[in-house]
Amino acid sequence: MTNASIITIGDELLIGQVIDTNSAWIAQQLNKAGIRVKRRVSVGDVFDEIWNALDEETLHSDIILITGGLGPTSDDITKPLLCKYFGGKMVINDEALRNVKYLFEQVFKRPVTESNFKQAEVPDNCTVIPNMRGTAPGMLFEKNGKIFISMPGVPYEMQGMVQNNVIKILLEKFNSSAIQHRTLITFGVGESTIADLLQHFEMELPEYIKLAYLPNYGMVRLRLSATGADKEAINEAINIQFETMKELVKEYLIAIDDESMEKIIGNLLLAKGKTVSTAESCTGGYIAHLLTALPGSSAWYDGSVVSYSYQAKEDLLNVKHSTLLQHGAVSEEVVREMAKGLLKKIHADYAIAVSGIMGPAGGLPDKPVGTVWVAVGNAHKIVAHKFHFRFDRKKNIELTAMNALNLLRKFILEND
Amino acid sequence: MTNASIITIGDELLIGQVIDTNSAWIAQQLNKAGIRVKRRVSVGDVFDEIWNALDEETLHSDIILITGGLGPTSDDITKPLLCKYFGGKMVINDEALRNVKYLFEQVFKRPVTESNFKQAEVPDNCTVIPNMRGTAPGMLFEKNGKIFISMPGVPYEMQGMVQNNVIKILLEKFNSSAIQHRTLITFGVGESTIADLLQHFEMELPEYIKLAYLPNYGMVRLRLSATGADKEAINEAINIQFETMKELVKEYLIAIDDESMEKIIGNLLLAKGKTVSTAESCTGGYIAHLLTALPGSSAWYDGSVVSYSYQAKEDLLNVKHSTLLQHGAVSEEVVREMAKGLLKKIHADYAIAVSGIMGPAGGLPDKPVGTVWVAVGNAHKIVAHKFHFRFDRKKNIELTAMNALNLLRKFILEND
Repeated sequence: MTNASIITIGDELLIGQVIDTNSAWIAQQLNKAGIRVKRRVSVGDVFDEIWNALDEETLHSDIILITGGLGPTSDDITKPLLCKYFGGKMVINDEALRNVKYLFEQVFKRPVTESNFKQAEVPDNCTVIPNMRGTAPGMLFEKNGKIFISMPGVPYEMQGMVQNNVIKILLEKFNSSAIQHRTLITFGVGESTIADLLQHFEMELPEYIKLAYLPNYGMVRLRLSATGADKEAINEAINIQFETMKELVKEYLIAIDDESMEKIIGNLLLAKGKTVSTAESCTGGYIAHLLTALPGSSAWYDGSVVSYSYQAKEDLLNVKHSTLLQHGAVSEEVVREMAKGLLKKIHADYAIAVSGIMGPAGGLPDKPVGTVWVAVGNAHKIVAHKFHFRFDRKKNIELTAMNALNLLRKFILEND
Repeated sequence: MTNASIITIGDELLIGQVIDTNSAWIAQQLNKAGIRVKRRVSVGDVFDEIWNALDEETLHSDIILITGGLGPTSDDITKPLLCKYFGGKMVINDEALRNVKYLFEQVFKRPVTESNFKQAEVPDNCTVIPNMRGTAPGMLFEKNGKIFISMPGVPYEMQGMVQNNVIKILLEKFNSSAIQHRTLITFGVGESTIADLLQHFEMELPEYIKLAYLPNYGMVRLRLSATGADKEAINEAINIQFETMKELVKEYLIAIDDESMEKIIGNLLLAKGKTVSTAESCTGGYIAHLLTALPGSSAWYDGSVVSYSYQAKEDLLNVKHSTLLQHGAVSEEVVREMAKGLLKKIHADYAIAVSGIMGPAGGLPDKPVGTVWVAVGNAHKIVAHKFHFRFDRKKNIELTAMNALNLLRKFILEND
């Protein structure tokens, strides 16, 4: 099987100023193409450390993909380094130069500066990979049967290059074996509970099928991976095992694809021709954001109200002042009134209302940080549920959103 | 200077199912403590590949921090591997066992299963690092003067361990030299324009001070890093250079700290004792989410309306049906009516209203994907601005939010 290493370059990755999303994205694309990512390495903008990384990854993998360090600024040393590493000399590439001029004159509508022109220089022993989304060209080098491809660190530019060129080049070069993955998602119990249910199943799996547990925000994703030469045979084998696994965890099963909770909700609403709306206090628009981040969400989503303050709950959702005073904003009564008020204000079939204390401040003796009330329902029925989360603000917001969406999912399935 | 390597373990990192946020977070903490992260490596749940990574990183660094592969499920092989690597044997650790029992009985309120008890087993030649947030204990090994620390992959658990124990242990062990960083943020022009402004400045920097460019979403972060033995001396030197740099880029300067745009807005509002509210169409609650993700945002934020559909724009913001029909939802007229309607519905000093086409579908001949109208203002004055973004849905949403917040920032500074 063909192995790949991904090297991401940049001091920002090593001081933690930037999260490396590039290598996860590249890994997904390689995986789909049947190329296994063996290692991912990040190094700083330091000549010797980049050089060493190239030497070392050559020992591990057939394909070495490199991102970062190609900008016009002087902390970007990857291009001259690669030129030296592969023994070339720098020349102006005509196609890359035309691209730089085109982008500045036609798209950015700014004058081209001296450092922009430098972007069109490449080592003379590389094959240029065009960048349709930016000024820095990609570069492909070959050495001892190994392929090295250097791409910009800007995610949007790198992604265009991988989709339009890199995968095609790699598939022509390497005859990759088949990988199949199937993932299902459980919600509401921990990894160890699921592991106990699947203990026997896992022991009986054939050697070429692997099971992985990926716990995250109340969900556990269970991924089966099968590898082999015959794509159809491993496809059939993995499907049989997947059905068995589904049956074993059916009590907690929420999806049989690697889907997000919001996508599950969107598919459910789309199938039923219904719409949802949210009234959010503590999640501050995060649930609305998750729903609207999905393309096509306007088919099943109309709008939301974020009512952070008492005043906004009264103004925008007609929550009664007396209810707020008597029970406090984080209470069953208030989330029920928020949901009811929302359904009156907006034309939606289902409502989600949430109110809670996300921290770090705002906790009360009887309502500590992490206390959340959620109501979901429709014009005929509203159900409410209290949660306690024990985490920091960010994670409490995310968990509240996931659990609120899951409550709606159950409501839709049970009240149809 | 003391060097560290971070090894993150898990197949999910190599097929791109999960983004590695752990190593960025750890890198931040080490950096603050004056320990340089030299390399970050991710490997799969494969015995030989983890073993090789330990061998290799020992050649690069004094400290090797490891996350992942400590769960109770059988794809988690890190613990037995470490036991063998350092030549120990597995024993039950009493403190870890008490912790497992405590968490299940008192916190999770679930019965302890067999796989949970396994969590309390550790190699007999490690020092246990307590996990106050989960069942898997941390483990510290020493070999040839190098320190190896293995931690769980669950971010919340790992973070507790690093904050409470790991940094302290490393600082006692290694006499780290000082690192100072200072970052400022520019908005509205690209990396190369800034680079041209700073070309001379950068050439004149002393050797122990480094400048890095971090472009992201219309912003460019400029980071100066100084390293040396004398903390006070490098502090003084970096501050002098920072003032010079500030002056050179002042036209585009928006912040003199490594702050997010939403934090800049929050600080501005807090200082003025004013509040903001948002009326969001295409951003679907994302701006509200950014603002409310900040602790303490209730001091300057009341609420928002997400009006995705025509109906919601009319119902929630009193946008006139005729305006929508005549000009379309993505128009100057509509965002102005959204902002005005919002300020009537909600008690806020400033309003942001956005409407646009985020893609992939929904583009029109005269309004292609990426067309966005933004209005910002107060009860006396509203200004509107049209943007064109050229990216995918996710990036268009993020860019719209950043530019809308920046428009408000300028409005507040100019209309006070």
